[in-house]
Amino acid sequence: MFLCLNLLAGLIDPIPTTISYDKKKANLGKKLFFDVRFSNGNTISCASCHNLHNYGVDSARYSTGVGGKPPVNTPSVYNAVYNIAQFWDGRAKDLKEQSIHSITNPLEMDTSLKEIVKKLSRDKKIVYEFGKIYKDGLTENNILDALASFESVLITPNSRFDKYLNGDEEALSKKEKQGFELFQSHGCVSCHNGINIGGNLFQKFGILESMDFELNVTGRYAVTKDLDDLYFFKVPSLRNVAKTAPYFHTGATTDLKEAIGVMAKYQLGQTLSNDETDKIYAFLLSLTGELPAILKENE
Amino acid sequence: MFLCLNLLAGLIDPIPTTISYDKKKANLGKKLFFDVRFSNGNTISCASCHNLHNYGVDSARYSTGVGGKPPVNTPSVYNAVYNIAQFWDGRAKDLKEQSIHSITNPLEMDTSLKEIVKKLSRDKKIVYEFGKIYKDGLTENNILDALASFESVLITPNSRFDKYLNGDEEALSKKEKQGFELFQSHGCVSCHNGINIGGNLFQKFGILESMDFELNVTGRYAVTKDLDDLYFFKVPSLRNVAKTAPYFHTGATTDLKEAIGVMAKYQLGQTLSNDETDKIYAFLLSLTGELPAILKENE
Repeated sequence: MFLCLNLLAGLIDPIPTTISYDKKKANLGKKLFFDVRFSNGNTISCASCHNLHNYGVDSARYSTGVGGKPPVNTPSVYNAVYNIAQFWDGRAKDLKEQSIHSITNPLEMDTSLKEIVKKLSRDKKIVYEFGKIYKDGLTENNILDALASFESVLITPNSRFDKYLNGDEEALSKKEKQGFELFQSHGCVSCHNGINIGGNLFQKFGILESMDFELNVTGRYAVTKDLDDLYFFKVPSLRNVAKTAPYFHTGATTDLKEAIGVMAKYQLGQTLSNDETDKIYAFLLSLTGELPAILKENE
Repeated sequence: MFLCLNLLAGLIDPIPTTISYDKKKANLGKKLFFDVRFSNGNTISCASCHNLHNYGVDSARYSTGVGGKPPVNTPSVYNAVYNIAQFWDGRAKDLKEQSIHSITNPLEMDTSLKEIVKKLSRDKKIVYEFGKIYKDGLTENNILDALASFESVLITPNSRFDKYLNGDEEALSKKEKQGFELFQSHGCVSCHNGINIGGNLFQKFGILESMDFELNVTGRYAVTKDLDDLYFFKVPSLRNVAKTAPYFHTGATTDLKEAIGVMAKYQLGQTLSNDETDKIYAFLLSLTGELPAILKENE
């Protein structure tokens, strides 16, 4: 067990329990995150799809934006800062690029940074706040910077599994530890690793058996145009997985045990016993972290 | 058929295709509807649970507010103005009272009108806008008035069924018309009637067979303290029902056909054939209306 923990130390890292950040920028970004002027018609904010009290998702199979429903399940904004790239197909290299894509996507916010600057410049209070923080005041880039500053604070430390990684042997039950061992021995950890227990590589959806899903959602191929990347998707983070149903880019199931079985079959070519599934499920439930304090601050 | 239509005229009314309203008040109310300053911590707006692009619901079984999850499924804000009262137990007599309840509920927005006035008064732009519309400017009551003005515009006319009610015989297919006849002959219409095809009376959940649901959610009893009202709930509107899963105050199913079967069994003591269910289902799909133009207005 001790050896295993040591090996693991390099594979999965806990989320830091405290981080330093620019409070002024993050609080300005917080306001922008909830501001519907970021959408055509002033009806959708970042929070519409990324409900921060609901672990950064809206629980819908497909979210609803200004112009319709994007064809993949909304990933959580929590811990997104630790992902290798943003979106299921990784088309945005960081949080700033992610914002631009969602702002301009006609299905999502259907507007532009130029239009947002125009709307916000009519609001003296927000212009003043930008002026206090940024030398050049309200600009497209400063909007993205403030948003990303806030989103970088959206991390969920102190899950029971993190406490275990940090040395608290009692933080997990016997069953959860067995689940964690199965998670490693069956090979789940080969893709779900790193600080986000996922989120750091692209993998084919349906390695060992082909899956039934929308074939026009081509994954990484849409970005690279390389046929070798067809149906490759970013491996999702398993942090807070118990709270972020439905699962997969398809949102095909809300049943986490079913999702475990599907992954074992299609990605690893294995059939899990009920007992094994139960134990891995118990382990996954230990990955739920704490929501950040900034949510409770009134300003 | 013609006779039936005439009889029906008194039972179900179409939603008006145009309404007159105070544009300035409604547009101010629109802004407030999306304003997170209406919650403790500035993270939840009315729109968080009532996504206006998603037919006024968030598709979750139970929504997530600042302090947790209210124990019943979120009803749509669309056409709510036509309901006899607000909430599943009707504890608010109108839209203004509904707002107060949600603003102050510790699970939902966890704040107070006093606190909201305090936050908004620091925002010169919004103070100016209240001053332009209301003689006494920004007050608790004017906040409620503007919000209710906006919500009164949130109606969804021009469903195919409404066009049929307005005389367009071609608006419904043969199957949908058969479904509508079954909807009447089986007695669904005895509770689901009026302009909202529901929303205008309280009825016991599980009349003919007792249901499996949270018994501490007592429905109308919680308001009247009359044991005769135990487990009575407001009959929900069936408008846009195809878009507002999950169903019942319990959010117990997302499958509309299953919901139809449950209602037939528990409320009417009937077992529907697959064919009958299919036809009633087809009819219910014709109840989806158009979202209002105010959603697309940028100011």
